[in-house]
Amino acid sequence: MKQKFYNLEITTNGHKLYEFTDSTLAWINKFDLRNGIINLSIQHTSASIIIQENADPDVQKDLIKYFDKLAPMNTSLYSHTTEGKDDMPAHIKAALTNNQISLSLKDGALLLGTWQGIFLFEHRIQTQKRTIIHHFIGE
Amino acid sequence: MKQKFYNLEITTNGHKLYEFTDSTLAWINKFDLRNGIINLSIQHTSASIIIQENADPDVQKDLIKYFDKLAPMNTSLYSHTTEGKDDMPAHIKAALTNNQISLSLKDGALLLGTWQGIFLFEHRIQTQKRTIIHHFIGE
Amino acid sequence: MKQKFYNLEITTNGHKLYEFTDSTLAWINKFDLRNGIINLSIQHTSASIIIQENADPDVQKDLIKYFDKLAPMNTSLYSHTTEGKDDMPAHIKAALTNNQISLSLKDGALLLGTWQGIFLFEHRIQTQKRTIIHHFIGE
Repeated sequence: MKQKFYNLEITTNGHKLYEFTDSTLAWINKFDLRNGIINLSIQHTSASIIIQENADPDVQKDLIKYFDKLAPMNTSLYSHTTEGKDDMPAHIKAALTNNQISLSLKDGALLLGTWQGIFLFEHRIQTQKRTIIHHFIGE
Repeated sequence: MKQKFYNLEITTNGHKLYEFTDSTLAWINKFDLRNGIINLSIQHTSASIIIQENADPDVQKDLIKYFDKLAPMNTSLYSHTTEGKDDMPAHIKAALTNNQISLSLKDGALLLGTWQGIFLFEHRIQTQKRTIIHHFIGE
Repeated sequence: MKQKFYNLEITTNGHKLYEFTDSTLAWINKFDLRNGIINLSIQHTSASIIIQENADPDVQKDLIKYFDKLAPMNTSLYSHTTEGKDDMPAHIKAALTNNQISLSLKDGALLLGTWQGIFLFEHRIQTQKRTIIHHFIGE
């Protein structure tokens, strides 16, 4: 059994999606990982990980707009408001999406569909430094 | 360590839930998988995987109706509309549910609760051919 | 390869969040688990597992209130009503959050962020006995 860990750091500037598929692939290639699970976990509760279409950029715009409507940045709706109007909506959006995703790797290939990309979904407005742990377990 | 891969193909005809628990169980039995994780990942961004009650069929009907209301098929709400009125709602519904689920297997038994079934949640209206990768890692 | 299973039982009394990070940590320490994945899966479809902020308790209050508004306990909205006004909303809330989460363990440390806690998110009003399976795979 082989295990390998890697902390991917992404600096964000605003609530939108940041694709990092290429960073994950580069890490897989660098260490010649072949078969196993790559467990991704974000170390924050106001940002998430999602797998989404990486073809038409309008999909990302619509997603951001949709989630903003679903969890409005309106302090009158929440009790937890001291960290800013975007903080409680950020926790909600994180709860509605994913903190963690497990990817499968076969013969060195990441098993994603043709149009699938892996994204950090930032929910805060201000610049943030985010860590996404990559953990490989396999052979 | 033992690893095993299997591509389950499901042809859908409309936005609803398709249970595939039996296909997963048949694959476990066929290869006598005993202890480990089965990572399921769907290779599409307009359909998802969910674990839900498989007893009362009304639960599925209510889920479909609820998600249709939460992400309406109304092109005036979205920018990404070229692939049909159901496409952007499909991406949203996929973001709100799961692309991937890891199941635990102990002594050959899939650790699901009494009323739990594994479903493909199709979000597109037209017929689609969907692939759900099954990846076993364990012993 | 080492595998280990543990059923954590939690008795709930109302639809709210129940943190169980300490129980997971105690189990890790007891069996000196070092490196691997811990797959958590809840054996029910009307409660979920989420990772959320465990600092300000207002975050939990806001989350509960938000999900109650998103999936109202109003039987006129649903067909599946025989198990109580809270049952169908519970299935919906479970679909919107997680049945399963995989955690990474490195050198005996659970890789969670500073403010992250692991919670059972109960969606039923009446007292329930819930089982969250812990499954370690690693070394």
